[in-house]
Amino acid sequence: MMKKSRLTTDKHARRSPCPVACSLDIIGDRWTLLIVRDLYFGRSRFKELVASPEKPPTNILTDRLNRLVAHGIAEKIASNDGTKHLAYKLTEKGFALAPILEQVRDWGLEWIPGTEAKIGERSA
Amino acid sequence: MMKKSRLTTDKHARRSPCPVACSLDIIGDRWTLLIVRDLYFGRSRFKELVASPEKPPTNILTDRLNRLVAHGIAEKIASNDGTKHLAYKLTEKGFALAPILEQVRDWGLEWIPGTEAKIGERSA
Repeated sequence: MMKKSRLTTDKHARRSPCPVACSLDIIGDRWTLLIVRDLYFGRSRFKELVASPEKPPTNILTDRLNRLVAHGIAEKIASNDGTKHLAYKLTEKGFALAPILEQVRDWGLEWIPGTEAKIGERSA
Repeated sequence: MMKKSRLTTDKHARRSPCPVACSLDIIGDRWTLLIVRDLYFGRSRFKELVASPEKPPTNILTDRLNRLVAHGIAEKIASNDGTKHLAYKLTEKGFALAPILEQVRDWGLEWIPGTEAKIGERSA
């Protein structure tokens, strides 16, 4: 049985109707936006996502991908290498997170010493 | 002894130099940006923050306020009611989170049915 996720957007379980609170119930953790970042930059296979510099634990990665799909932020697609491996891509709802990613990136670059954005990544 | 926070920005403990990852190590949870939201809108006393619509548990609120202060996002100030109660306000680094809040709010309003932003709140 899959562990019940702590995060929910069940309307009756919402903490409030505040859009910030409801959004954080979906994306408010240390990993979700990093996975969105990787999907945004074109990683799609589980093995690509698990190879991310932050080394997401596989159980967390699996949980977050399932939640992204459940919330319509990502969708499962056929792998483009002809194998039966699953892959993921962002939906329109997922791509709409790009401005949040940009602002989080910019705040980090401005206020956290030693951070650096990669050159040549997909322009947001 | 205070419980060691799971979240850190100790440079040696960083997951990567990515500004998104490093920012999420500070603000990547369900509560921190809500507290920043409340401070932004002028709540300053603990009792005001604990009365937030999302009802933050007091232990979480205490932990997050300490972390915000430790990271220079908020600072302790004298309460403006003449009592010795502590109050908090955002620093420049904290106010710089406003664009993130705005984008999170806008994404929620656009993509999560039933969310609503309050009228007459401080314009970000």
